[in-house]
Amino acid sequence: MTDFSNGAAWIKGRIVPIAEATIGVTDWAVTHSDVTYDVVPVWDGAFFRLVDYLDRFEASIAACHMNIGMDRTEITRALTDMVAQSGLRRAYVAMVAARGTPMIPGSRDPRECANHFYGWCVPYVHVIKPDVADAGARIWLSDTVRRIPHNSVNPLAKNYHWGDFTQGLFEAKEAGFDTVLLPDDAGNVTEGPGFNVFAVKGRSVVTPQDGVLHGITRKNAMEMCAANGMDVESRALPIAELMEADEVFLSTSGGGIIPVAQIGERRFSNGAAGPVATALRAQYFERLADPAYRTEIDYPG
Amino acid sequence: MTDFSNGAAWIKGRIVPIAEATIGVTDWAVTHSDVTYDVVPVWDGAFFRLVDYLDRFEASIAACHMNIGMDRTEITRALTDMVAQSGLRRAYVAMVAARGTPMIPGSRDPRECANHFYGWCVPYVHVIKPDVADAGARIWLSDTVRRIPHNSVNPLAKNYHWGDFTQGLFEAKEAGFDTVLLPDDAGNVTEGPGFNVFAVKGRSVVTPQDGVLHGITRKNAMEMCAANGMDVESRALPIAELMEADEVFLSTSGGGIIPVAQIGERRFSNGAAGPVATALRAQYFERLADPAYRTEIDYPG
Ligand SMILES: Cc1ncc(COP(=O)(O)O)c(C=O)c1O
Ligand SMILES: Cc1ncc(COP(=O)(O)O)c(C=O)c1O
Repeated sequence: MTDFSNGAAWIKGRIVPIAEATIGVTDWAVTHSDVTYDVVPVWDGAFFRLVDYLDRFEASIAACHMNIGMDRTEITRALTDMVAQSGLRRAYVAMVAARGTPMIPGSRDPRECANHFYGWCVPYVHVIKPDVADAGARIWLSDTVRRIPHNSVNPLAKNYHWGDFTQGLFEAKEAGFDTVLLPDDAGNVTEGPGFNVFAVKGRSVVTPQDGVLHGITRKNAMEMCAANGMDVESRALPIAELMEADEVFLSTSGGGIIPVAQIGERRFSNGAAGPVATALRAQYFERLADPAYRTEIDYPG
Repeated sequence: MTDFSNGAAWIKGRIVPIAEATIGVTDWAVTHSDVTYDVVPVWDGAFFRLVDYLDRFEASIAACHMNIGMDRTEITRALTDMVAQSGLRRAYVAMVAARGTPMIPGSRDPRECANHFYGWCVPYVHVIKPDVADAGARIWLSDTVRRIPHNSVNPLAKNYHWGDFTQGLFEAKEAGFDTVLLPDDAGNVTEGPGFNVFAVKGRSVVTPQDGVLHGITRKNAMEMCAANGMDVESRALPIAELMEADEVFLSTSGGGIIPVAQIGERRFSNGAAGPVATALRAQYFERLADPAYRTEIDYPG
């Protein structure tokens, strides 16, 4: 029996242990970060909101002018077979569209590359460890690194351009914080490595609209806020407004809703997780169990 | 006998054909484009200005807070062994420092990753095909895509964040041009996919200073211009000034000096390669043969 406990990958129709899943060093996915991807959570044996993630993945592929030669049914089958074989019941499931290499050797024309798909899954990833999230995360708001602007790289096509986040993470970790949030050049907040951000003020909730990925967890958060009777706005969120919020929280497929206890020197709810974010966090985990959002996986024996 | 005619790679001390050279799909070099690299040319059996490329590579590694556990002598030995075994006498030689994966599974802290080095070489790459370069390249100056700014990703640490270039290349190729040049938000020109840019006006030459990689070929071009009695300036280069230049040329380790015949609608030297750029192009190829700059490779039998 192959050991898939660390994860599995689907590559050219073969399912292999994650440690054997590789990509060529000359693939433009590597040498130009010319790649788009998505990540759908598997929770207790089912994909969560798979259609939303596939919608976004297909939109990203189109935005990158790629053709992976697989339709939605084939992508779904590949991901399902892979997770089923891995045996993982809570997983982080990546689907990747890579530019590939030129069909004409030496070409520098992205239109002449053989695009391809691969998938991989590993045990569920928490962007912020659950105990830290429960207590409220401590966030570093960088004042030196700016989020890559949307007129340089389209943030709506989920991408691996994380140089800004990485530099920000070094700052955050050196300063003793859990993760980093990046502003743009206009003094608005954007997002962080793997999450969107929300500011709560009274019964109003604001999350950035431009220059950020439109997270599926962001969508869940907006829906849950509306269901809780709050006003939800998606628009530019100035740093000053964020800092004056009653509560701040993050949203990510890697852990759901993460209450924020502190941003730099500013503490929210006396440095603890606030009530609105804590309620949303619980509601998100309830959603993960809701059959309406689940695509059950048929695991072998 | 192994066939290395398409190239070779050095991975964990083993030399393999390029088609077998791979990196794990979960390496942060892939999933966060958390990787820095350099490319040194091999011309007629010798590295060109190897020390300059190694200096830049080591500076990039430091800027990325990486430790690949190999010193300059070991890197040089790896690259030399690899090229010697490949048998390639004109090659594009990449040296790569990758973030790796966390030593503590599930960690999202870049300080906790096992960084690693690999190298690869392929037959010499021309960013612009030599016949096109001889005649003068046709350049698309994007007015929609901006170069990723230096306060988002440090351009001096050579990196694979090419999303802006890729989007620009699609525009350029669709419009029938050879490659793309990107401006910044302030209306200055920056660089293109794999090259720096120079504007010539009378006996003066200007090349952008900030928001660009400081190319080794740029350095060669500046030295050659000075030796030819020209004034060389490295500073912001407004688009208007570029368009009013007598001549424009590109510099890249993938082909040297590339005369520019046209940018958008604007033709230079009646749509041909200009005399200054043509002379520099020839001088660059002379430099490639100059023993002062060459580190000879000892090829087997
Ligand atoms: C840059 C960025 N923003 C936001 C998110 C959150 O998106 P989602 O809720 O779909 O996971 C992610 C997820 O990885 C991300 O990478
Ligand atoms: C973004 C960028 N600018 C400029 C250059 C030119 O640098 P060099 O002359 O060292 O090849 C390159 C080379 O690949 C590059 O990638």
